[in-house]
Amino acid sequence: MRTIDWVDGCPLIVDQTVLPDEVRFLSLSTVDLLIDAIRRLAIRGAPALGVAGAMGVALAARLGNELGIDVDDAVRRIRAARPTAVNLAWGVDRAAAYLPAGPAAVLAEALTIRDAELAASYEMGRRGADLLQELAGDRIRVLTHCNTGGLATVEYGTALAAVRSLHERGQLTDVLVSETRPLLQGARLTAWELRESGIAHRLVTDSAGPFLMVRGQVDAVVLGADRICANGDVINKIGTYAHALGARAAGIPFVVVAPESTVDLETKSGTDVDIENRAGGEVLSFSGRRTAPLGTEALNPAFDVTPYPLVTAIVTESRVIRLDRGDLP
Amino acid sequence: MRTIDWVDGCPLIVDQTVLPDEVRFLSLSTVDLLIDAIRRLAIRGAPALGVAGAMGVALAARLGNELGIDVDDAVRRIRAARPTAVNLAWGVDRAAAYLPAGPAAVLAEALTIRDAELAASYEMGRRGADLLQELAGDRIRVLTHCNTGGLATVEYGTALAAVRSLHERGQLTDVLVSETRPLLQGARLTAWELRESGIAHRLVTDSAGPFLMVRGQVDAVVLGADRICANGDVINKIGTYAHALGARAAGIPFVVVAPESTVDLETKSGTDVDIENRAGGEVLSFSGRRTAPLGTEALNPAFDVTPYPLVTAIVTESRVIRLDRGDLP
Repeated sequence: MRTIDWVDGCPLIVDQTVLPDEVRFLSLSTVDLLIDAIRRLAIRGAPALGVAGAMGVALAARLGNELGIDVDDAVRRIRAARPTAVNLAWGVDRAAAYLPAGPAAVLAEALTIRDAELAASYEMGRRGADLLQELAGDRIRVLTHCNTGGLATVEYGTALAAVRSLHERGQLTDVLVSETRPLLQGARLTAWELRESGIAHRLVTDSAGPFLMVRGQVDAVVLGADRICANGDVINKIGTYAHALGARAAGIPFVVVAPESTVDLETKSGTDVDIENRAGGEVLSFSGRRTAPLGTEALNPAFDVTPYPLVTAIVTESRVIRLDRGDLP
Repeated sequence: MRTIDWVDGCPLIVDQTVLPDEVRFLSLSTVDLLIDAIRRLAIRGAPALGVAGAMGVALAARLGNELGIDVDDAVRRIRAARPTAVNLAWGVDRAAAYLPAGPAAVLAEALTIRDAELAASYEMGRRGADLLQELAGDRIRVLTHCNTGGLATVEYGTALAAVRSLHERGQLTDVLVSETRPLLQGARLTAWELRESGIAHRLVTDSAGPFLMVRGQVDAVVLGADRICANGDVINKIGTYAHALGARAAGIPFVVVAPESTVDLETKSGTDVDIENRAGGEVLSFSGRRTAPLGTEALNPAFDVTPYPLVTAIVTESRVIRLDRGDLP
């Protein structure tokens, strides 16, 4: 099962808003449907967003050709659908470079990106597992945050690919999955993926992680990134920074696994990044049920910045950046 | 409105499991009803549990006299209803010391404890606000965790009493309330109390706190304690430790406000404390809605330990313990 693919002239995605209750596929036949799917996180995860951006441009190019829609405007709107994720803009730009060559060339580039992301996932899994073994030995208990599995990529994953790879090597002894409020990607998506793959795991609240680390129940934290800055600062799902503080206090490795497309050398450091504040309603409800009294307001930063000194290493499909040894992205 | 009181020969409590949707009072007419209310957190919060423990003994003494129930067994069972909260056992023991003098003497002691907790709340509010002003100036933005308000005491609160007191002095400019998973005491109870009191506030996820601190949006963290160890280690709701790491990294004060009855000099340090692991179901659902796939397991430590070096000060009704200056409880 692929999280995103190109079927019958359109992007076909797994709707992540209805998991784990239902596995529903959505055919995104218009640019507005695609943008809406990106905005409401029906498709999410840095690598998957790169593919979605490129396929969005392929869709716009086809519809421009067939129906005469304004392709440049469509490309601009797709690119701006999520401000923090650098991969979306990256995928859009790569595909858009082929617009002068026509819709078929744009589609070919989008499919190239899809295939490259697929190959990159397996490579990140292998390199990530190698590093985790090197840092934490041959019987490893990991904690992961948010969803970095097949659902965040085309298949297999980024950080969760490393976890899968450790499992395949017989070196994984425990997985703690933080639920990842407010949208519960850990509880809804990661727990679902691990169950489907037969990998034993337990769910924990987001604020329990640092305590479980200092109590000696975690050997390494491994998670993804939405953007990696030139100095090594990591922009990722809210809660990443708190987990990094916990890992440092407990003296365990904090490993980020993400594709090269996440590395953004144009962004000098995390202080330069516009952190997306999403709607307060996400915090005020839990699985569709209101949690706070009517009229309560919420502040909902969707991402945070983990400063490079807290990151042991960043693993991509082509290299291991040992920030703890002074390497730079 | 008092969270717990003695009415018509029984403890009368506000059922905190149905807030904020409903304000429902429960008359606890048997020892089993009382123990059940404590276990399922219908009544909770260190000071309120102390009063509940004492009133439970008064109830047992009355029923022993009238119906011949086994009072010693009832006292033992009440004392063991929650293992981590020291106040419950403290309240039970104080009231039980009067058992030889008869039910009226036990009840008199329970009411004395109730009245003392009431007075202590206002005193903690005053002292806590004084300290926060001293540490953070005259226009203070606080972050608080869990519920330490009137609902955790008889009325007014502990840490939230300090927040209320700052508000009454016109020196409170923002309150961030962490939702406090898994049972959402921040979202359900603290937000409700602050709304009832007309104090502006915003809800945040538990993992957002440390990031908002380092981004300069919080001047001080103020929260409660379930137990304070002889070395100053603080046992409190899960997530407290992660917030303490955040406060330290951001260089802002981390202030604990709790009654003297929380200080347990018999416990040398946090490593000696049995941390209550509650049912995984609390993490896996909210309000009856399942969040993770069927069959998912969860690990649910209900409390954590914040080591004393991360705590700026502990405020009680009678003193300010400046851990940052080497004071000891």
